[in-house]
Amino acid sequence: MRHFLIDTDTASDDVVALILALRDLSIHVEAITVVAGNLPLDLAVTNALHSIEQAGTYAPPVYRGAGKPLLRPLITSEFVHGSDGMGEMNLPPPTLTAAPGHAVDRIIEVAAQYPGEIEIVTLGPLTNLALAVLKAPEIAAQVKQVTIMGGQGRGAGNMTPVAEFNLFVDAEAAQVVLNSGLPLRFVGWDCSTDETFITQQDIDHLMATGSARAAFCVRCNTTLIDYNARSWGKVGFDLPDPVAMIAALYPDVIREEIAAFCAVEHRSEATYGQLIIDEHRLLNRPSNASVCLKIDAARFKEILFERIS
Amino acid sequence: MRHFLIDTDTASDDVVALILALRDLSIHVEAITVVAGNLPLDLAVTNALHSIEQAGTYAPPVYRGAGKPLLRPLITSEFVHGSDGMGEMNLPPPTLTAAPGHAVDRIIEVAAQYPGEIEIVTLGPLTNLALAVLKAPEIAAQVKQVTIMGGQGRGAGNMTPVAEFNLFVDAEAAQVVLNSGLPLRFVGWDCSTDETFITQQDIDHLMATGSARAAFCVRCNTTLIDYNARSWGKVGFDLPDPVAMIAALYPDVIREEIAAFCAVEHRSEATYGQLIIDEHRLLNRPSNASVCLKIDAARFKEILFERIS
Amino acid sequence: MRHFLIDTDTASDDVVALILALRDLSIHVEAITVVAGNLPLDLAVTNALHSIEQAGTYAPPVYRGAGKPLLRPLITSEFVHGSDGMGEMNLPPPTLTAAPGHAVDRIIEVAAQYPGEIEIVTLGPLTNLALAVLKAPEIAAQVKQVTIMGGQGRGAGNMTPVAEFNLFVDAEAAQVVLNSGLPLRFVGWDCSTDETFITQQDIDHLMATGSARAAFCVRCNTTLIDYNARSWGKVGFDLPDPVAMIAALYPDVIREEIAAFCAVEHRSEATYGQLIIDEHRLLNRPSNASVCLKIDAARFKEILFERIS
Amino acid sequence: MRHFLIDTDTASDDVVALILALRDLSIHVEAITVVAGNLPLDLAVTNALHSIEQAGTYAPPVYRGAGKPLLRPLITSEFVHGSDGMGEMNLPPPTLTAAPGHAVDRIIEVAAQYPGEIEIVTLGPLTNLALAVLKAPEIAAQVKQVTIMGGQGRGAGNMTPVAEFNLFVDAEAAQVVLNSGLPLRFVGWDCSTDETFITQQDIDHLMATGSARAAFCVRCNTTLIDYNARSWGKVGFDLPDPVAMIAALYPDVIREEIAAFCAVEHRSEATYGQLIIDEHRLLNRPSNASVCLKIDAARFKEILFERIS
Repeated sequence: MRHFLIDTDTASDDVVALILALRDLSIHVEAITVVAGNLPLDLAVTNALHSIEQAGTYAPPVYRGAGKPLLRPLITSEFVHGSDGMGEMNLPPPTLTAAPGHAVDRIIEVAAQYPGEIEIVTLGPLTNLALAVLKAPEIAAQVKQVTIMGGQGRGAGNMTPVAEFNLFVDAEAAQVVLNSGLPLRFVGWDCSTDETFITQQDIDHLMATGSARAAFCVRCNTTLIDYNARSWGKVGFDLPDPVAMIAALYPDVIREEIAAFCAVEHRSEATYGQLIIDEHRLLNRPSNASVCLKIDAARFKEILFERIS
Repeated sequence: MRHFLIDTDTASDDVVALILALRDLSIHVEAITVVAGNLPLDLAVTNALHSIEQAGTYAPPVYRGAGKPLLRPLITSEFVHGSDGMGEMNLPPPTLTAAPGHAVDRIIEVAAQYPGEIEIVTLGPLTNLALAVLKAPEIAAQVKQVTIMGGQGRGAGNMTPVAEFNLFVDAEAAQVVLNSGLPLRFVGWDCSTDETFITQQDIDHLMATGSARAAFCVRCNTTLIDYNARSWGKVGFDLPDPVAMIAALYPDVIREEIAAFCAVEHRSEATYGQLIIDEHRLLNRPSNASVCLKIDAARFKEILFERIS
Repeated sequence: MRHFLIDTDTASDDVVALILALRDLSIHVEAITVVAGNLPLDLAVTNALHSIEQAGTYAPPVYRGAGKPLLRPLITSEFVHGSDGMGEMNLPPPTLTAAPGHAVDRIIEVAAQYPGEIEIVTLGPLTNLALAVLKAPEIAAQVKQVTIMGGQGRGAGNMTPVAEFNLFVDAEAAQVVLNSGLPLRFVGWDCSTDETFITQQDIDHLMATGSARAAFCVRCNTTLIDYNARSWGKVGFDLPDPVAMIAALYPDVIREEIAAFCAVEHRSEATYGQLIIDEHRLLNRPSNASVCLKIDAARFKEILFERIS
Repeated sequence: MRHFLIDTDTASDDVVALILALRDLSIHVEAITVVAGNLPLDLAVTNALHSIEQAGTYAPPVYRGAGKPLLRPLITSEFVHGSDGMGEMNLPPPTLTAAPGHAVDRIIEVAAQYPGEIEIVTLGPLTNLALAVLKAPEIAAQVKQVTIMGGQGRGAGNMTPVAEFNLFVDAEAAQVVLNSGLPLRFVGWDCSTDETFITQQDIDHLMATGSARAAFCVRCNTTLIDYNARSWGKVGFDLPDPVAMIAALYPDVIREEIAAFCAVEHRSEATYGQLIIDEHRLLNRPSNASVCLKIDAARFKEILFERIS
């Protein structure tokens, strides 16, 4: 049994990723740690609990983590995911509640509990993981793999011309993680805007299954659908967090990946949050991450649709 | 008759671009202004004069310009073009000599002389053009078009993961030019590394013509051939300056181009010299440049081979 | 009884400050937390334990904290304090040992234990305190006062023209602390280079007391004496940490102090670590710290000499 | 006869400095070059012409220079000097007019005309001088002395906590000048806020002379008097430009001066425009400027009052 820990700033696409992970019975999610990002911390915790309830399998403990980035004020993305992060679903409060204790400590404890086995997937800004590795640098040698939804691969950013949201919100945290020695895989926003994009046809297919869970997964992304139409002229929605989750669960869906020295710009206003990928080894520095460039979209959708229906 | 001014840090691929321009009798090159970049200023001036002699058509006046970037120490690229910038050809001194007067003044004068008509092509760092527009902001309204060999389009840099040589050498100058209101077109290094790349087959073709001029054009790129083999694992040579020159001469070779707000990072060490292209209008600022993304390679080679043979 | 927590990167002047605090029976030191700074963490922990043994009063628990700054590689100052941080004393290992648990957690716990009463004095880089307040922002409201040895007041820096060592080693941590809402007082390096400087006469006076403890306090600063002679042309040694400690213990020794909006530069290479003090309210932002500008030197020495003899 | 060239962004205190220089018959002002700074270029040119008319001695040619900083948008200071830069005097247009030609060229020409003798005094942002030395680096060896009103010495800034207006407006230009090899002396804002400050008593003295010229010099500083009262709680006005001019005319008024390696921060938002002075040689780099720290205030006022009355 593989052991996972998921760190999330739970809004609509995180929800789908969490449901996907919790319904994949080849792994066990040991803990869900929550960070401020798409939403303020409280709302993200609430949505993580909703996700567990919707998954309907088992309930890993949910831990509150950092309420803001290391150095910058928090930037949220209600304009993408809705004021509740759930496409304005007006859900009643979840029945589940968060566990006592701090996300940062829980990351450290779970790493120590499953040394060499624990796999971490981060779906939000890297504040929690940065604090964990700053407090306990030894986890770098204990964690088997960190899959990060973050960066923009060879493509453009979604917050600035060069920066993707998760790294833009806390670039300093991302750089801390890159400095740490943790085994890192970045799955960028670019991996969810190509054939992995959920089209109207995909939506129709999901709705046609009659699955309430599938409908929930579509429904909570309503604001994201509107945002895509308005800002990118596309019908449907991207699922960056589920794409990263699938890459973590089934690495063979990765069709193209490079190992490279990476850094995250955190000094300049204009390029803040950019994932700098030294693909051509111009800097002569050892690789500190791999960057996923292409996902098998058909297989992604097949697994996704099967799990969430 | 179209009126051109060419600003160049003349090393091997600039040579090809100059010969191409001087042998294109649909235009007249009013002046060649030289800037330090690939090489220190004196060597670049010498190579510009050699280029005119090799072209064998007419001799525009050559003007000395800035010997170093606005703020940074000069970085040169003998490792790419050879210690003479000419693939170690050990040429005798040129017969021609530079004209008196400063490149910056000549740019301003030529712009005033052909208002609305003058077309500028820059093949090196933008120091001369920046100084010209700082001294005489009115040239922004006089120049018809500036075609800049610079930047990296949607691709990676060649000096750092994100920065191309010409913008990296003097990012402040590039930003001055972007601030100026001049009508700008960037043709990046990315446009010369795809099918426009000069392969061994192309080299064989050029040599088979028996043209001494074509042989010269190949010969002066010898060090660049070595560099490409060593650093990029490619057989042949890229011709960024001739690609930009063709785009200026025959804009219909451009197959894909976008208008966008652009900036050049000049504050951060890690991303210094990056051309930031707001392709998706995330910054809500008006376009200040167009960026060429794709050139018709077949047509490029056809024109190039015809002109230089 | 006042409750203190001392965070220290224990080298020679920290030693004097710790002895001073532990022998001041008007306060109780609840914990000593150690951070990498002047020295790597292990050595600093060892020196903290030595300091307790030399003080000869009581033994607060000593906790290991961060082994390096948030984002930058660690810079140490053996060139100032000796390879052991103790003026090359070659001391035998201390009898005491560090307590289990992490400095960051202990800071949070002690703050919760003495809300409204706990006073923190930091003698090194602010990494531990930054991590504590990032993990538990609520301590900002629990801590009564933080006295920081750091910055350069209106004077020049000692690591760069504008930056003092403690802020220079981890400027990001210092900015986190400034962002936190903690009640802060900076006592800069400038406060220890004026009449508070320990002259040869002061040294003679201390040695003449015949106190082994006083001799130890002088002896461990031998390398600092050499450094002052070599680099600043001064005979004697400065005691920035004891000056800050006295300011914390007896705030009435402060002769001049201003409240101001402060920030720590952490983007620029040239000014990294500078404490920017908006003394004249040019930025129109609320004060977030007070900055001590002048200490009553006579009273400082009187108290110091009495306590450590 | 000493040969001077004065570069000015003429507003109220520049006016006094110009009158002072033009009425000092031990020197000859070869040219006045104007730069945007306190005011947009046109207004500054107008005020330079007014100054010549008020001086009533001789009329050096006045040249228009740069209308904005090298890279940043222009920041002006009408809030300090009035909308006309003259304390809202509503003067009729001057009779004199500007000379044809560009300030940058004139600086280069005058330097070549008086090699080893020419002394330059800059009273505004360093844009013109930066462009001159970028275009003609050889002037660095021709100019005898550049006296710069700029920086903040050991004190605080007046635009930000660390930056003085002239360097803040165009920090890149200031860095260009520091890189140039020109022999530089900075006379900072700090040198005009101590005993050199023009008090009410000084104003009364000037008015009591009955000199129309002295009255004009006071009158044009009316808005500055208001600004000092409002922002700094001081009665009277500072004269940074005349202080720098006196230091250039009579270097023996300088009571304290240091030679040091200097740089101007131009990367960081927070410290942009700061003159970094490595007074204690921490950077181990050769001096590139001297920085005046203290002026003989009594002698300054004596000369000033005599000249402008």
